[in-house]
Amino acid sequence: MDAIPVRFSKMTQTRLVFPPDTNHMGTIFGGKVLAYIDEIAALTAMKHSNAVVVTASIDSVNFLSSAKVGEALTLEACVTKTGRSSMEVYVKVYADDLLQGEQKVTTESFLTMVAVGEDGKPVSVPEVIPETEEEKELYRTAADRKREREKKARMNV
Amino acid sequence: MDAIPVRFSKMTQTRLVFPPDTNHMGTIFGGKVLAYIDEIAALTAMKHSNAVVVTASIDSVNFLSSAKVGEALTLEACVTKTGRSSMEVYVKVYADDLLQGEQKVTTESFLTMVAVGEDGKPVSVPEVIPETEEEKELYRTAADRKREREKKARMNV
Amino acid sequence: MDAIPVRFSKMTQTRLVFPPDTNHMGTIFGGKVLAYIDEIAALTAMKHSNAVVVTASIDSVNFLSSAKVGEALTLEACVTKTGRSSMEVYVKVYADDLLQGEQKVTTESFLTMVAVGEDGKPVSVPEVIPETEEEKELYRTAADRKREREKKARMNV
Amino acid sequence: MDAIPVRFSKMTQTRLVFPPDTNHMGTIFGGKVLAYIDEIAALTAMKHSNAVVVTASIDSVNFLSSAKVGEALTLEACVTKTGRSSMEVYVKVYADDLLQGEQKVTTESFLTMVAVGEDGKPVSVPEVIPETEEEKELYRTAADRKREREKKARMNV
Amino acid sequence: MDAIPVRFSKMTQTRLVFPPDTNHMGTIFGGKVLAYIDEIAALTAMKHSNAVVVTASIDSVNFLSSAKVGEALTLEACVTKTGRSSMEVYVKVYADDLLQGEQKVTTESFLTMVAVGEDGKPVSVPEVIPETEEEKELYRTAADRKREREKKARMNV
Amino acid sequence: MDAIPVRFSKMTQTRLVFPPDTNHMGTIFGGKVLAYIDEIAALTAMKHSNAVVVTASIDSVNFLSSAKVGEALTLEACVTKTGRSSMEVYVKVYADDLLQGEQKVTTESFLTMVAVGEDGKPVSVPEVIPETEEEKELYRTAADRKREREKKARMNV
Ligand SMILES: CC(C)(COP(=O)(O)OP(=O)(O)OC[C@H]1O[C@@H](n2cnc3c(N)ncnc32)[C@H](O)[C@@H]1OP(=O)(O)O)[C@@H](O)C(=O)NCCC(=O)NCCS
Ligand SMILES: CC(C)(COP(=O)(O)OP(=O)(O)OC[C@H]1O[C@@H](n2cnc3c(N)ncnc32)[C@H](O)[C@@H]1OP(=O)(O)O)[C@@H](O)C(=O)NCCC(=O)NCCS
Ligand SMILES: CC(C)(COP(=O)(O)OP(=O)(O)OC[C@H]1O[C@@H](n2cnc3c(N)ncnc32)[C@H](O)[C@@H]1OP(=O)(O)O)[C@@H](O)C(=O)NCCC(=O)NCCS
Ligand SMILES: CC(C)(COP(=O)(O)OP(=O)(O)OC[C@H]1O[C@@H](n2cnc3c(N)ncnc32)[C@H](O)[C@@H]1OP(=O)(O)O)[C@@H](O)C(=O)NCCC(=O)NCCS
Repeated sequence: MDAIPVRFSKMTQTRLVFPPDTNHMGTIFGGKVLAYIDEIAALTAMKHSNAVVVTASIDSVNFLSSAKVGEALTLEACVTKTGRSSMEVYVKVYADDLLQGEQKVTTESFLTMVAVGEDGKPVSVPEVIPETEEEKELYRTAADRKREREKKARMNV
Repeated sequence: MDAIPVRFSKMTQTRLVFPPDTNHMGTIFGGKVLAYIDEIAALTAMKHSNAVVVTASIDSVNFLSSAKVGEALTLEACVTKTGRSSMEVYVKVYADDLLQGEQKVTTESFLTMVAVGEDGKPVSVPEVIPETEEEKELYRTAADRKREREKKARMNV
Repeated sequence: MDAIPVRFSKMTQTRLVFPPDTNHMGTIFGGKVLAYIDEIAALTAMKHSNAVVVTASIDSVNFLSSAKVGEALTLEACVTKTGRSSMEVYVKVYADDLLQGEQKVTTESFLTMVAVGEDGKPVSVPEVIPETEEEKELYRTAADRKREREKKARMNV
Repeated sequence: MDAIPVRFSKMTQTRLVFPPDTNHMGTIFGGKVLAYIDEIAALTAMKHSNAVVVTASIDSVNFLSSAKVGEALTLEACVTKTGRSSMEVYVKVYADDLLQGEQKVTTESFLTMVAVGEDGKPVSVPEVIPETEEEKELYRTAADRKREREKKARMNV
Repeated sequence: MDAIPVRFSKMTQTRLVFPPDTNHMGTIFGGKVLAYIDEIAALTAMKHSNAVVVTASIDSVNFLSSAKVGEALTLEACVTKTGRSSMEVYVKVYADDLLQGEQKVTTESFLTMVAVGEDGKPVSVPEVIPETEEEKELYRTAADRKREREKKARMNV
Repeated sequence: MDAIPVRFSKMTQTRLVFPPDTNHMGTIFGGKVLAYIDEIAALTAMKHSNAVVVTASIDSVNFLSSAKVGEALTLEACVTKTGRSSMEVYVKVYADDLLQGEQKVTTESFLTMVAVGEDGKPVSVPEVIPETEEEKELYRTAADRKREREKKARMNV
């Protein structure tokens, strides 16, 4: 399997915030944002690997600001680094106030997606080639995040 | 109001095809595709105009190929030309077979979105500046499409 | 296959406008209306042909007036004319203000639905028999619309 | 308030059965059918009364047959009789196997809808005029059903 | 098959009331409540019987009070008595005003769920063992409700 | 404000896994599970605080096993400890194979929910009283998790 540039599977989504996605005060539910994050991460990982993927984990998520009805969420996702069957995917979420033309960061997160075969067992994925400075930085720091994740997983046992 | 480059509001969306969006044979409903086309056109026009928009019309749509459960639809949209309150938006839809890595054109369409104020009445929008060759071509041919549309509207009266 | 009267597959739908189907100002999204139009067209064509159908095309749609939360949309559909595997379906949409008892036309459209078999390939459909004056008029003018459609399709190539 | 013929607010709906509405074996959930029954009853009562309505009660429902993915449900509803602010609505549901062209009764039910004002308090509604034999029969027998309902409500206290 | 205590399959659900589930005045649709009632009854019956179940009937339902956007519905369900393949399930629904900390009964109902095999034919289910006073009362009175149901079904023939 | 026992706002949810919530292979999307986790956490926190709440953060989540169409997810949630305006909520998720009667842990997570007033600004919440051994353990260890969270948040700056 040939390595594939990050840009090949990089993806952007824009989503209007609808009334049913929001609470009493018109603020989007965190759970809705998490569902969008997982969907774009899955699409990105499927595009990179040409395989069905499942979500193995999502790192902690801080919601720095919220989005309201009539605003839009913009999500960007890319594969940062791969293992044998796993891909770390970075997702960044902005809230766009389309009427004011303002944008602020809502949250960001790292997910681990695992490519699986028909039997649900992990299958191997191509490596990823970082090209831009940001991509290289995310590639370099992936090992640290992996170690942190494994430490945390052990603690919970 | 300063004119705004096309690229400012250009947008891409990727959507997984889910079982509830498909018929008996796992093929996506045309109506679901139309709803996605309208959503990205509205977002693009809102971003260009910083205003709430309504759909005034959609030109005829031919579905050249279909998408199945587990595939993804990729939609691209940009404002091609503006009137006083109206924006013509061009939307192109691809079906992505993520597991095979193949992409084919599903359909394309032109919509007219109108910016409206609190009272639902049209408000004026900034002009658009085409930069790439494709943008310039779409800009140039917009007047023809408008004439065609008005002719057709008159015939229906 | 015996020819079947238009009235056999004629259909009416009434749909409440719900908050998630509307924008900021409580006006229904054009995309939602298009999805309803496609659904009733598919049901009508399935009833006429006893086959699974796909949407081959939808002619241009002008939204003359809109519907608000709490109002209802009434859709009427009938098969106007058939080809070998294709059926032209006419859909008319009214907005009903149930509290005022007022009704206005929102839009109308013609769709081409194609009957397909298990393999997704076109299969033949029964002819249609127009009976009322309106049905006969729609039947008579179908050839013109088909020619217009084909001309437009060629221009886009 | 002038009395209004039953036919004025009589309504028909046709709904495709989608995968998310069904269980493991592709059979529609009873709860989905109940939701459709309530929706058409509400629309019918709103059309008769030009008022917002709430569901006061639904009589017992027996599911005689079921509908599968790819089939359609056809619902018919009409106001059978009115009180001061309440309307009894009769709903009949058929399952349509569109591919075989067969139709069987799924269920029928009587609901009591109450017209309410802005403050949620009951408001009065016009009387209803039955015209066909079936409408007259439903009108005549409404008092019995009302008595039965009241007896049952007392027993539950 | 060994008899199983009621408590084994007893279940509780809490559901936020969202805007799309409500009418003009922010009051939940009766049909939405009915869909929730059917869902918890199905889950409870599946848990008791380890089988797929279908809804055979629902007894009449009176809506005593309503729930508004931002409130929650709490549903409780348990199997009261079993036949060979059928299970009577009792469901009670409360509206919780989470901001005031108040709770009121919205409605209650009895459903008959039938366990079915792969072929859609009824299969036998384990008996149920009532333990608390309330469970024993519901068990004792089940035969009366069954008789009432059968009488009513005969009347409708 | 009087302190409130954990048990007062403890909550359980059971959710059937439906086809639209799953991928190609009938396995539930991680994002759907995250949305359910957020919903029950919000309900629990609202019940404890009698206030509207927003999700400030969710700790990392590992998906240990998955759930398939026709299985059910059972979620349990309780408030473990409170700050001035924040509540830590613990959520545990099981997959229930209703047909086999088997249950396995899918995942668990800690969320921080913040009570807010009409203006979206944090408001104070009552303290929580742990009673069972498990509640006391979760209460005791909450400070560690908070420190870990703050350390991680600083690192990301
Ligand atoms: C993810 C899953 C397939 C891993 O299966 P497994 O038997 O543990 O397989 P392995 O031990 O071979 O691990 C496969 C890869 O997943 C990674 N992985 C496993 N658990 C992980 C976790 N919690 N976080 C991050 N990575 C994880 C491993 O490091 C390994 O990576 P590598 O192949 O790049 O070296 C399995 O745990 C699973 O199916 N979980 C449920 C996933 C799911 O359905 N999520 C949606 C909602 S529940
Ligand atoms: C679109 C709408 C606002 C136009 O209102 P109007 O009173 O006709 O306003 P105007 O005549 O001033 O037209 C405003 C602009 O819309 C354009 N327009 C109007 N109808 C149009 C149509 N069917 N197709 C394309 N453009 C159209 C006009 O050309 C004009 O463009 P310009 O300002 O760039 O010169 C009005 O028809 C409407 O509200 N329709 C319903 C829209 C809607 O809700 N759609 C969603 C589903 S129903
Ligand atoms: C529609 C479709 C089945 C036609 O297939 P095809 O290989 O072109 O078949 P044919 O050339 O034999 O055409 C079959 C019929 O469709 C008609 N047709 C094909 N394309 C059409 C179009 N764009 N508009 C109107 N009619 C069209 C033909 O005129 C022919 O009609 P007839 O049988 O009555 O003479 C095929 O293009 C398709 O599957 N498209 C995708 C449909 C879909 O999935 N839509 C939903 C969302 S993508
Ligand atoms: C959560 C939020 C209200 C905090 O506002 P703030 O101005 O930072 O308020 P404060 O600094 O007074 O913090 C309030 C409480 O939140 C806690 N908090 C803030 N950010 C946090 C985080 N990322 N993780 C955990 N707790 C956090 C604080 O520790 C404090 O707790 P305490 O009152 O118990 O001591 C604000 O960041 C916000 O609105 N975020 C968006 C939330 C949202 O909409 N989520 C849904 C999807 S976007």
